[in-house]
Amino acid sequence: DFDNSLREVKAAFGQAEEELSKYILNGIVDWGPQISKIMDDGKLFTQQVRNSARTPLVSVLLEGPAGSGKTALAAQLAQNSGFPYVKVVSPNKLVGYSEAAKCAAIAKVFDDAYKSPFSCVVVDDIERLLEYVPIGPRFSNVVLQTLLVLFKRIPDKGRKLLILGTTSQKSVLSDMGILDAFDATLKVPNISNPDQADKILGDLQLFTPEDRAFIKTKLIERGTFWIGVKKLIMLAEMARQDEANAVEKFLNHLGGDGF
Amino acid sequence: DFDNSLREVKAAFGQAEEELSKYILNGIVDWGPQISKIMDDGKLFTQQVRNSARTPLVSVLLEGPAGSGKTALAAQLAQNSGFPYVKVVSPNKLVGYSEAAKCAAIAKVFDDAYKSPFSCVVVDDIERLLEYVPIGPRFSNVVLQTLLVLFKRIPDKGRKLLILGTTSQKSVLSDMGILDAFDATLKVPNISNPDQADKILGDLQLFTPEDRAFIKTKLIERGTFWIGVKKLIMLAEMARQDEANAVEKFLNHLGGDGF
Amino acid sequence: DFDNSLREVKAAFGQAEEELSKYILNGIVDWGPQISKIMDDGKLFTQQVRNSARTPLVSVLLEGPAGSGKTALAAQLAQNSGFPYVKVVSPNKLVGYSEAAKCAAIAKVFDDAYKSPFSCVVVDDIERLLEYVPIGPRFSNVVLQTLLVLFKRIPDKGRKLLILGTTSQKSVLSDMGILDAFDATLKVPNISNPDQADKILGDLQLFTPEDRAFIKTKLIERGTFWIGVKKLIMLAEMARQDEANAVEKFLNHLGGDGF
Amino acid sequence: DFDNSLREVKAAFGQAEEELSKYILNGIVDWGPQISKIMDDGKLFTQQVRNSARTPLVSVLLEGPAGSGKTALAAQLAQNSGFPYVKVVSPNKLVGYSEAAKCAAIAKVFDDAYKSPFSCVVVDDIERLLEYVPIGPRFSNVVLQTLLVLFKRIPDKGRKLLILGTTSQKSVLSDMGILDAFDATLKVPNISNPDQADKILGDLQLFTPEDRAFIKTKLIERGTFWIGVKKLIMLAEMARQDEANAVEKFLNHLGGDGF
Amino acid sequence: DFDNSLREVKAAFGQAEEELSKYILNGIVDWGPQISKIMDDGKLFTQQVRNSARTPLVSVLLEGPAGSGKTALAAQLAQNSGFPYVKVVSPNKLVGYSEAAKCAAIAKVFDDAYKSPFSCVVVDDIERLLEYVPIGPRFSNVVLQTLLVLFKRIPDKGRKLLILGTTSQKSVLSDMGILDAFDATLKVPNISNPDQADKILGDLQLFTPEDRAFIKTKLIERGTFWIGVKKLIMLAEMARQDEANAVEKFLNHLGGDGF
Amino acid sequence: DFDNSLREVKAAFGQAEEELSKYILNGIVDWGPQISKIMDDGKLFTQQVRNSARTPLVSVLLEGPAGSGKTALAAQLAQNSGFPYVKVVSPNKLVGYSEAAKCAAIAKVFDDAYKSPFSCVVVDDIERLLEYVPIGPRFSNVVLQTLLVLFKRIPDKGRKLLILGTTSQKSVLSDMGILDAFDATLKVPNISNPDQADKILGDLQLFTPEDRAFIKTKLIERGTFWIGVKKLIMLAEMARQDEANAVEKFLNHLGGDGF
Ligand SMILES: Nc1ncnc2c1ncn2[C@@H]1O[C@H](COP(=O)(O)OP(=O)(O)OP(=O)(O)O)[C@@H](O)[C@H]1O
Ligand SMILES: Nc1ncnc2c1ncn2[C@@H]1O[C@H](COP(=O)(O)OP(=O)(O)OP(=O)(O)O)[C@@H](O)[C@H]1O
Ligand SMILES: Nc1ncnc2c1ncn2[C@@H]1O[C@H](COP(=O)(O)OP(=O)(O)OP(=O)(O)O)[C@@H](O)[C@H]1O
Ligand SMILES: Nc1ncnc2c1ncn2[C@@H]1O[C@H](COP(=O)(O)OP(=O)(O)OP(=O)(O)O)[C@@H](O)[C@H]1O
Ligand SMILES: Nc1ncnc2c1ncn2[C@@H]1O[C@H](COP(=O)(O)OP(=O)(O)OP(=O)(O)O)[C@@H](O)[C@H]1O
Ligand SMILES: Nc1ncnc2c1ncn2[C@@H]1O[C@H](COP(=O)(O)OP(=O)(O)OP(=O)(O)O)[C@@H](O)[C@H]1O
Ligand SMILES: [Mg+2]
Ligand SMILES: [Mg+2]
Ligand SMILES: [Mg+2]
Ligand SMILES: [Mg+2]
Ligand SMILES: [Mg+2]
Ligand SMILES: [Mg+2]
Repeated sequence: DFDNSLREVKAAFGQAEEELSKYILNGIVDWGPQISKIMDDGKLFTQQVRNSARTPLVSVLLEGPAGSGKTALAAQLAQNSGFPYVKVVSPNKLVGYSEAAKCAAIAKVFDDAYKSPFSCVVVDDIERLLEYVPIGPRFSNVVLQTLLVLFKRIPDKGRKLLILGTTSQKSVLSDMGILDAFDATLKVPNISNPDQADKILGDLQLFTPEDRAFIKTKLIERGTFWIGVKKLIMLAEMARQDEANAVEKFLNHLGGDGF
Repeated sequence: DFDNSLREVKAAFGQAEEELSKYILNGIVDWGPQISKIMDDGKLFTQQVRNSARTPLVSVLLEGPAGSGKTALAAQLAQNSGFPYVKVVSPNKLVGYSEAAKCAAIAKVFDDAYKSPFSCVVVDDIERLLEYVPIGPRFSNVVLQTLLVLFKRIPDKGRKLLILGTTSQKSVLSDMGILDAFDATLKVPNISNPDQADKILGDLQLFTPEDRAFIKTKLIERGTFWIGVKKLIMLAEMARQDEANAVEKFLNHLGGDGF
Repeated sequence: DFDNSLREVKAAFGQAEEELSKYILNGIVDWGPQISKIMDDGKLFTQQVRNSARTPLVSVLLEGPAGSGKTALAAQLAQNSGFPYVKVVSPNKLVGYSEAAKCAAIAKVFDDAYKSPFSCVVVDDIERLLEYVPIGPRFSNVVLQTLLVLFKRIPDKGRKLLILGTTSQKSVLSDMGILDAFDATLKVPNISNPDQADKILGDLQLFTPEDRAFIKTKLIERGTFWIGVKKLIMLAEMARQDEANAVEKFLNHLGGDGF
Repeated sequence: DFDNSLREVKAAFGQAEEELSKYILNGIVDWGPQISKIMDDGKLFTQQVRNSARTPLVSVLLEGPAGSGKTALAAQLAQNSGFPYVKVVSPNKLVGYSEAAKCAAIAKVFDDAYKSPFSCVVVDDIERLLEYVPIGPRFSNVVLQTLLVLFKRIPDKGRKLLILGTTSQKSVLSDMGILDAFDATLKVPNISNPDQADKILGDLQLFTPEDRAFIKTKLIERGTFWIGVKKLIMLAEMARQDEANAVEKFLNHLGGDGF
Repeated sequence: DFDNSLREVKAAFGQAEEELSKYILNGIVDWGPQISKIMDDGKLFTQQVRNSARTPLVSVLLEGPAGSGKTALAAQLAQNSGFPYVKVVSPNKLVGYSEAAKCAAIAKVFDDAYKSPFSCVVVDDIERLLEYVPIGPRFSNVVLQTLLVLFKRIPDKGRKLLILGTTSQKSVLSDMGILDAFDATLKVPNISNPDQADKILGDLQLFTPEDRAFIKTKLIERGTFWIGVKKLIMLAEMARQDEANAVEKFLNHLGGDGF
Repeated sequence: DFDNSLREVKAAFGQAEEELSKYILNGIVDWGPQISKIMDDGKLFTQQVRNSARTPLVSVLLEGPAGSGKTALAAQLAQNSGFPYVKVVSPNKLVGYSEAAKCAAIAKVFDDAYKSPFSCVVVDDIERLLEYVPIGPRFSNVVLQTLLVLFKRIPDKGRKLLILGTTSQKSVLSDMGILDAFDATLKVPNISNPDQADKILGDLQLFTPEDRAFIKTKLIERGTFWIGVKKLIMLAEMARQDEANAVEKFLNHLGGDGF
């Protein structure tokens, strides 16, 4: 059994690296101090898990608007931890699972984590894992109860665990009592000023320097906006298809106008 | 396994063409600039899927009133994409399926899509897939959660996917959070003026030129109306059965009077 | 398989005729122009299904108060169609079926219909098929979704289908979105004046001419009433058991008094 | 199969007689004209089923307050019908049945009834068959739908059926649409004056003539009361246990005082 | 079969005696006329079941506040009946049973009871059998319907049955229609004056005569209180653990203060 | 069977000690008289179970805010009892169990307890066992009913049982009727003044004496706060990771500021 579990753990390592990179498709652009702050705090939590005997379990929630980059940041923190066992619990992998099967799969990830001296589990898109829908509201109480217990269950002596959750429905999670189960919360913000947008468009080479300069001027004229990094990249790519009107289309999209 | 999946994919091609044509029973009449606009935008999204490495998944929703031609337009866009894998997820094929079986069938279509370098999946009549009924309201949360995940799940490296959804219940989908899962929305309008109606009746040869001229005059007298292309064709065909009174019956139907 | 389906279809023909007659126990009395209008309109729809390539599916709803004769009229129209495949989907045959089994049985009828070049399916007492009850309200969403899809599903090329639905709960069906799924609606009225009642009592020989004359005089004195043809026949038969007081009892019943 | 069904039917006869008597434990006391009226009307309905070809199905509901004697009266009418097939559908026999099994058992009784030329089915305590409880309210929609169909399903040619239902929850049945499914309703009243009570106490020899005379005087002093025949018999029997104070206890009970 | 059922019945006797005593752990202290009244009334009901042919089924409900002694009193009455078949239906024995299994177990007890000429069934803690919880409210309708039928089902000729129910939720049972199913109700009161408390403390030797005298004086000073006999015994036992302060602690507890 | 159960019991002993220690990860710091009071009261209850024949079952609820130390205190009391059978029922061990399986597991613990002359069962985090969530609210009525019965079920003669429950949702448990099922309630408080905090930081050596002195001064300036011992330890450990700013970070955390 021990040999088996060891083999499992080893196999998991390889997968982990590859899998994590899938969630960081366009890298992490350092578009402002908020991003560095999240990376720094994340590092301290990793450290605490490594060092503190009094708190063998530390759980942190990354919350912010849709498309703000929560999943990519959590994946990056997990990768940086350097822990031997790193795993992502994602609704992507649980399509078509029954509630019970979902719980079993989630519990399996944690049970495997408890076998490694240092582990990091990313629990992505918690509202989706919970099958939450605001009409009703409805959600899977079975999954909710499983998460509520797992987020607080202390590993056996000699085992340490870091849990990184993500959500864009902070108030819903609060109503369900999940927020209280986390030891700390990190806020992931949207992009809200021309400099931040420009940094991203530049780093990802989505427009020529001239176009970017033009865009920036226009954005400054407009004043504030509020958009996630993920949506920003999507809008830029869409606009670029219509080569003749790319810049104009991009500015229309950003303003919320249709196509 | 690879051979198998290849064989499956090939078999799928033939079916796709034939199947798509079923959804465009009366062709696409170009009755106004709105229709050309939809066809053009659709083309740009196809292009983006083909070209952009940053956005391997693009999802677009066609929404409009019942009978406005959403399904036919989505089918036409899918056919025009020229992608090797094209498939329609339609409630028509899922009659009598349990919720779980529905999810499995839907997920299968997407899993197959991920195997082809370029794929287009039409998800038709989303409110019907969701088994939505306004009393309650009730719907299948299992199907909803499956769609919410699939509409956002990025294919593996080297795979590209275009999703075309259709619905006549935009506000319901918005309440459920489905609208946010789409990258863009295209509005499919009803017919609302005599010229548009005349173009359709003419292109489909539903009345003689003289009858059409008479109808047009009457419609201009009446002012605006509001009817989907599908319903318009049905009313014309019904009216024509009573040869003696065809034009009169047609005008009555259009005015909302009984038989 | 083809031979099998042919044999099935043939077997179905014989049954159809016999079965339909069961739903027209007391014939169709032509008690007013409303009845002829329904028969005429029904004929035009049959014609449309036979002739129009643009609309291979036509669906018509007969709606009216309880006991107004909806089922008998739909059965008569189906019989008059002369289509090779005619079938009634009735809650009578589905007692004790689970929701899933009900859907399977309904879908089977439609699947068989798609095999015949011209088919007519009567879907009787839709609110009962839906297991509707106003308390709650409750109903089978599984059956509802099945019907919503089947009422709109276009048969394969070369196949034509006429659907005749019946209901006494028009507003409920409207709330559920079923009404929109029908291409047309025919209103089946109650009997409301002495002439109409007299015609029925006479044609069915429920009273002697003298008694009928007396009844008519009394009804004219009273003014309007509102009763279905089915209930009228039942009341007459009940009253006739008490030979001595038959006419008096009948008038009491019609007035809503007890026994 | 025919032989089998014949054997079943024969076996059913014997049981029927014995079973019916169980529901008339204390006979039918003719305590007022209301009782004779119910017996007479019942006779006419039996006659109608026997004679009328136009109405092979007649369904009658006996409704009245708890303990008013509904079940005993329905059982008596069924016995008087003299029909070859008589059966009681009672919740007593369905304890512990699942909803589906209940429906199957009920449907079986009706299916057997359709095999006999003349049948009478008593459907006792409909609210209990429906598992009705006012909190919620809750009830078995599966059983409800089964009854709604069976109460209206016309037997095959040459078969006649009389249905006698009982309930103490008329308004609930009305809300559920069951009342409309019955062709007629008979009201079973409570006892409300001293003469009626005296008749029952006398016929059943529950008190000596002297005690009865005393009771009557006291009841006349008091004015009206309102009690079912079943409860009246129970109270008399309870009171009689305390021989010394029997009359006094009986009067107290009737007045609603405790023990 | 007969031999079997006899053997079962005999085996049941032995168990009954032993089981009943478990529910009367601290005997029945005759602390006031209310207790004697309950015992006397119970005797009359036993007599009625033994003697009356007109009422072979008598059902009585003992209702009162939590801990007032309902179960012990019902068990004592059952034991005093001297009937050959005596059984307790208690939630204690049904832990972990599904709703269906609960119903089967309850029905089994009644079916066995119908085999004995005279039987007494105690149905303890009806709200717990019903799995009642005020939030919602929720309860098992399956169990409720089973009880509603069993409480009214008359045994076969020659069999007599006494049903003793207990509950501390009279109004809930009334809302559910259970109260109406009982022929009579006995109210079990709490203890409310110093004499009653003193009688219990004395009979059960919970304090020395001196302590009791002191306690009584203090209670008289305080005025009325309201506590069940079961709770009173528990408080006395708790207080006695702290030998030094027993009397003081007891008085504090009774006053509702903490520990 | 007896040998088997003995062997089971023995095996359970070893596990118990080890398991209990897991719930007291950071010991029990005696930070104020409230803690001693809980320990003393707990001792008296243990004594009562050991001595009183009249009350073989005593059940006590420890309730207080999240992280106040309820579980650790209950585990300590259980360990101090010295009873041969001690067991913790915890949601931690029931992840992924169905409601029925949960009930079976809980009932098993109690059934085992009834086999030992003296037993102590800790029922930890009752709201989690109940799968409680305030939205709805939802909870497992099956588990609730199981607990309601088990908390009141008296063991067989010669067996004694102490039940220690914990919860941070007292009012919810009260609404569900669980509170009434307990014989007594112990309140576990949060830490609210600088002395108490200082005692804990000192005993657990979380800061140097100098840092602690500084912290205390600052806390005195601030006035009251309100925090559980568990959260206090977590905040201290987090703050200590950032060695340079440990004290400052700790004070920020305590004040409710982010990171
Ligand atoms: N600073 C950044 N932070 C996060 N993501 C970034 C950043 N810079 C670039 N990205 C890119 O932006 C995208 C963020 O998408 P991601 O899926 O993480 O967003 P999300 O908030 O999880 O979205 P959703 O709300 O839909 O779950 C990724 O492709 C990532 O590589
Ligand atoms: N410009 C057009 N756009 C769409 N459909 C057209 C157009 N011109 C003709 N048609 C025909 O009109 C019909 C449109 O029906 P379709 O099923 O696509 O409508 P729909 O909006 O999907 O209806 P529903 O709301 O019922 O799903 C098809 O038969 C199609 O061939
Ligand atoms: N003009 C008529 N239209 C319909 N039915 C007629 C007519 N004349 C006589 N009938 C007879 O009246 C009866 C009508 O009953 P039918 O079951 O069709 O009514 P229904 O409206 O379907 O009732 P329900 O609302 O209970 O379903 C049949 O026996 C039919 O033979
Ligand atoms: N005139 C009468 N009508 C009905 N029952 C009578 C009459 N005279 C005497 N009885 C006796 O009264 C009792 C009536 O009880 P029955 O069970 O029929 O009442 P019920 O109304 O069905 O009660 P429930 O509402 O509980 O179902 C029977 O024992 C019956 O023999
Ligand atoms: N006069 C009495 N009546 C009832 N019980 C008594 C009396 N005198 C002493 N007792 C003792 O008091 C206890 C009563 O507990 P019992 O379980 O019967 O109460 P209960 O009302 O059923 O409680 P619950 O509401 O929790 O079901 C028993 O131990 C019984 O022996
Ligand atoms: N006086 C004390 N009382 C309780 N726990 C203490 C005390 N002193 C130190 N501790 C430590 O504090 C922690 C208390 O955590 P515990 O899990 O018992 O809290 P809890 O109230 O059960 O939390 P939750 O509400 O999350 O269930 C344990 O690690 C325990 O060792
Ligand atoms: Mg994400
Ligand atoms: Mg469509
Ligand atoms: Mg009908
Ligand atoms: Mg009855
Ligand atoms: Mg009790
Ligand atoms: Mg705890």
